[in-house]
Amino acid sequence: MKGKAKKSAVFASMGRTEERQEKNINSNKRRYYGSRKGRGYSSKISQKNYRREESVSLPPIGDNLRIIPLGGVEEVGRNLTVIEYKNDIIIVDAGLQFTDEDTPGIDYIIPNIKYLIENKNRIRGIFITHGHLDHIGAIPYIIDQLGNPPIYTRQFGALMIKKRQEEFPHLPELNIKVLDGNEKILIGQNLKVETFPISHTIPDSMGIIIETPFGKIVFIEDVRVDNANGVPTEEEVEQYKRFQKEEILLLTMDSTSIEKPGFSIAESTVVKNIEKIIKEVPGRLIIGTFASQVERIISIIDLADKYGKKVVIEGRSMKSNLEIIKQLDLLKSKNIISTSELNNYPPQKIMMIATGAQGEEYAALMRIANKTHKEIALNKTDTVLLSSSIIPGNEYSITKLKDNLYRSEAKVITYLDSDVHASGHGNRGELEWIHKQINYKFFMPVHGHHYMLRQHSEMSQSTGTPSENIAVPDNGSVVEIYEDGKKIRILKEKVPSSMMMVDGFSIGDVQEVVIRDRKMLAEDGMFVIIASINTKTGKLKKSPDIISRGFVYLRESQDLLQQTRLIIKKNIEETAAGMNPINFDFVKSNVAESVSKFLFQKTAKHPIVIPVILGI
Amino acid sequence: MKGKAKKSAVFASMGRTEERQEKNINSNKRRYYGSRKGRGYSSKISQKNYRREESVSLPPIGDNLRIIPLGGVEEVGRNLTVIEYKNDIIIVDAGLQFTDEDTPGIDYIIPNIKYLIENKNRIRGIFITHGHLDHIGAIPYIIDQLGNPPIYTRQFGALMIKKRQEEFPHLPELNIKVLDGNEKILIGQNLKVETFPISHTIPDSMGIIIETPFGKIVFIEDVRVDNANGVPTEEEVEQYKRFQKEEILLLTMDSTSIEKPGFSIAESTVVKNIEKIIKEVPGRLIIGTFASQVERIISIIDLADKYGKKVVIEGRSMKSNLEIIKQLDLLKSKNIISTSELNNYPPQKIMMIATGAQGEEYAALMRIANKTHKEIALNKTDTVLLSSSIIPGNEYSITKLKDNLYRSEAKVITYLDSDVHASGHGNRGELEWIHKQINYKFFMPVHGHHYMLRQHSEMSQSTGTPSENIAVPDNGSVVEIYEDGKKIRILKEKVPSSMMMVDGFSIGDVQEVVIRDRKMLAEDGMFVIIASINTKTGKLKKSPDIISRGFVYLRESQDLLQQTRLIIKKNIEETAAGMNPINFDFVKSNVAESVSKFLFQKTAKHPIVIPVILGI
Repeated sequence: MKGKAKKSAVFASMGRTEERQEKNINSNKRRYYGSRKGRGYSSKISQKNYRREESVSLPPIGDNLRIIPLGGVEEVGRNLTVIEYKNDIIIVDAGLQFTDEDTPGIDYIIPNIKYLIENKNRIRGIFITHGHLDHIGAIPYIIDQLGNPPIYTRQFGALMIKKRQEEFPHLPELNIKVLDGNEKILIGQNLKVETFPISHTIPDSMGIIIETPFGKIVFIEDVRVDNANGVPTEEEVEQYKRFQKEEILLLTMDSTSIEKPGFSIAESTVVKNIEKIIKEVPGRLIIGTFASQVERIISIIDLADKYGKKVVIEGRSMKSNLEIIKQLDLLKSKNIISTSELNNYPPQKIMMIATGAQGEEYAALMRIANKTHKEIALNKTDTVLLSSSIIPGNEYSITKLKDNLYRSEAKVITYLDSDVHASGHGNRGELEWIHKQINYKFFMPVHGHHYMLRQHSEMSQSTGTPSENIAVPDNGSVVEIYEDGKKIRILKEKVPSSMMMVDGFSIGDVQEVVIRDRKMLAEDGMFVIIASINTKTGKLKKSPDIISRGFVYLRESQDLLQQTRLIIKKNIEETAAGMNPINFDFVKSNVAESVSKFLFQKTAKHPIVIPVILGI
Repeated sequence: MKGKAKKSAVFASMGRTEERQEKNINSNKRRYYGSRKGRGYSSKISQKNYRREESVSLPPIGDNLRIIPLGGVEEVGRNLTVIEYKNDIIIVDAGLQFTDEDTPGIDYIIPNIKYLIENKNRIRGIFITHGHLDHIGAIPYIIDQLGNPPIYTRQFGALMIKKRQEEFPHLPELNIKVLDGNEKILIGQNLKVETFPISHTIPDSMGIIIETPFGKIVFIEDVRVDNANGVPTEEEVEQYKRFQKEEILLLTMDSTSIEKPGFSIAESTVVKNIEKIIKEVPGRLIIGTFASQVERIISIIDLADKYGKKVVIEGRSMKSNLEIIKQLDLLKSKNIISTSELNNYPPQKIMMIATGAQGEEYAALMRIANKTHKEIALNKTDTVLLSSSIIPGNEYSITKLKDNLYRSEAKVITYLDSDVHASGHGNRGELEWIHKQINYKFFMPVHGHHYMLRQHSEMSQSTGTPSENIAVPDNGSVVEIYEDGKKIRILKEKVPSSMMMVDGFSIGDVQEVVIRDRKMLAEDGMFVIIASINTKTGKLKKSPDIISRGFVYLRESQDLLQQTRLIIKKNIEETAAGMNPINFDFVKSNVAESVSKFLFQKTAKHPIVIPVILGI
């Protein structure tokens, strides 16, 4: 999305998950927490605020099949889709979304589950396609309100979910059913669920097939296609072979990287390039990447073994994922050492894998770069490899990181210099190849902003799908397959879809007014007036007090404050003159308006003006 | 910087100038101003705050030559470089920088000119290379403090400067000297200045040659190289021919797009592709681009003439630039019509050129897209062409724009679909080509973040410059050419370089504390406690008042507020008990700490807590 072929990184990867979590937790919260045993801050959730809307009222479902995306179709993140048939509800994924400039102070945004709460007795299970936060991150915030239904997923995802759940010790134990990928699970009377392996960047990623009386629904969430120069590998061909035999009722699929043309670089090429760098560096090699790039991290550690190097893992989320990797025996390496052992080996025997390639303020690589890391200082024989791309919104922090790295003497290599990163989301070519492997009737694009879904829809049409067989949903849209599976439509009724925000311990969709205030405070600050008024005479007891933050530099603004005090006094006394009793609300709104106007005239700023008038 | 070959748009263009100005003025300010005759808001500057640092103290300059970049070498924007020899100072460019997430509420950042103010009697003139805001935008904020020195520039830049100056009617008239490009200007006793044409995106862009007793300094600010598939045009070759004859003392040059490999797309290719689209669209064509892309706008209007179409210009900055274009007779078109005439022509005879391709909230294209434009509504025969790339930091607003456009029925074409945009900043290949045209001794990269300057330095070394002949400066660095021009060094002393922020009518480098508060307010809001205490008894008169914004949703937090009131009362009364007189500062800090702690325990948020204690 940046520049011409910038296509290859628009929403560069699921990497946004882990890494951004790191960013959120570290930069916003750690200053308060210090080292609370390395835990996230969300150890309790005290408050849940929902808008007092009326109940959801949809036409009766009858014999139809409904698919309701509650998140992930107007944004990248907070993926959650509901499948509903008769009395049974299945949920696919329960992710969170990272916040942006539009939601200051907010930790995460999660799907609005009001509809599910009202129908919780019909929820039969949650299927999790893989262990990234945009697919599992909402679980702790919603699971108890859904009645703690079973969570079906494979081993790696299960461990990721459990790991995260440890940060919420007050919650009841999860009911996780670990799948081996071969089972067919009967859900209620009418639905059967199977899974199949797909390629992403984390072990045990899977697609989901839901067998309904109308036919099969295939969910392909985050996916890429392993390939050599645009030719899918045999393994990929094998993975999709099962779909040659049958017509699928509905395909639904990731749209994140639809804007990027062709096939992305093969992960094998990325690993080969990293191997070349490992062989050639004159000293230590520090690799910054996403903790969520689990498969690449495994490859890199394997390479360290091959070249007889020791590996230091730096960063909380990286270490935490490494534990899971070890627990599942995905790694045999005995070459992982702790940071304190660094100096026991010559530099050319040392590699590090560190979080922070997006410039997250307190992540390992940033601390190394800005010289605040206690144990690691860069020198001129070091090489820093950023094995990641830029996630939109992170340009600013990555620029800081690169500036800091360049101010050290280390050599810096980025994906601009060499193919050392590939995204976990397939480019348009890969998505199109998958479309061609599956003989489907209906199509529903998911995972992405509206325009991405529309582009995905256009691509599906270009492969022969009639436009009336495609549903491009919004969050809360009710997609209905009706007439015994012959037709698809989007109902005009929607289920609630307003943003649920996680804001400290509070979760709800009522934060909008708070957010609006935060934005105003960030732009122009605030200005509190405190005046004590003699209720008999209507005169001020003394010159009013003023408290202001984020508005102007007060020490240099004494004249302005003095003039404002005079205006306050004059305004209040004139308004109150002759009032008996004094109408405080009127006095307040009057003085607020007049001060606001005056301050704007003088400063071109519009602080939030709050008058406090005390009657004495 | 995004994805793999994203190279072609990192800091996509000078387009950031005009367009972002639009964004700033519109989204932040227009809500207050309404339609104040279309003017910007900065009609007066009432306050100038500088830190009370000691005077700048540098070693005497002696017979040396100094070059001091005051801005533009640690960022993209606020370009200003000082050249100093004996008693004479020349300034090259005086630009502003657009703000980012790190400076909420700030309008612009300008170079710190404290050093110039202290030496203003030695300033002989300001040379402006071209009329973009990152090169002219600081003029109104600094010119009177510099003693209103002459401004030398060519016609187009002169008109851009004058146009902008109209927004500051309180300032004395500028002393602008319009150059025709053929003169050699004697500055003081020892310096001579010549200019030469270079390629950018706005008419009359020029390079500057300053002849000093040690040799010539060549300034190549924003520049690209017109080319056909990587082969520079004859005109380009011609422009740089003059440098074949002589050795240049110092070359200094734009580094903005150093990360992008090769040559950028030729502007002629861009125009050719746009022509193809103009020919093929079935109905109206709406082209969104940067107002600063003046040359492209002229080409597009010429194409409209060629194909017998009428052109509507939408957007304030676009219209304003069009006036200058007309004034200079750069355009003969009689086909420009007003928006109100739109319906007098069939759709296929209509083209529009609009601001807002970066998703600026109130710019023309965004209003068209989100259906708030009064006169223009999109329909299915319309085509919207975004002839621009994404400027880092604008991903979010561009996503909104694209979502809105895709929700209309219009067809959307972006630079991802076709080569319909090229940046005004040459890629690495172009910069390297220029290096090879000029036989220089010393090199100083400018215009970009530190890492870009470092990459530019590496490139210069790769063309044969010894590293000791290269100076990579920071803002405020004093680069000195000494020993009769034989050597170059950066002094250890720096001149002041802290950020000067334009914040409403206030300008200064003292805003840091204000900014810090704004950031805290944006994250966690504020919490003001008002308590009246009986100075005799130390008891509160009544339950304390609480004012809070941007913290939690108060209506749903009554319990929390009630508990907090009790804590306030208890804390204040316990602290004050037995005090005579009451130490208000102590009581305040005590209650603030205790409330802050309590609120954090309950909410995981850290609002700014401000206690007001009134003694009664």
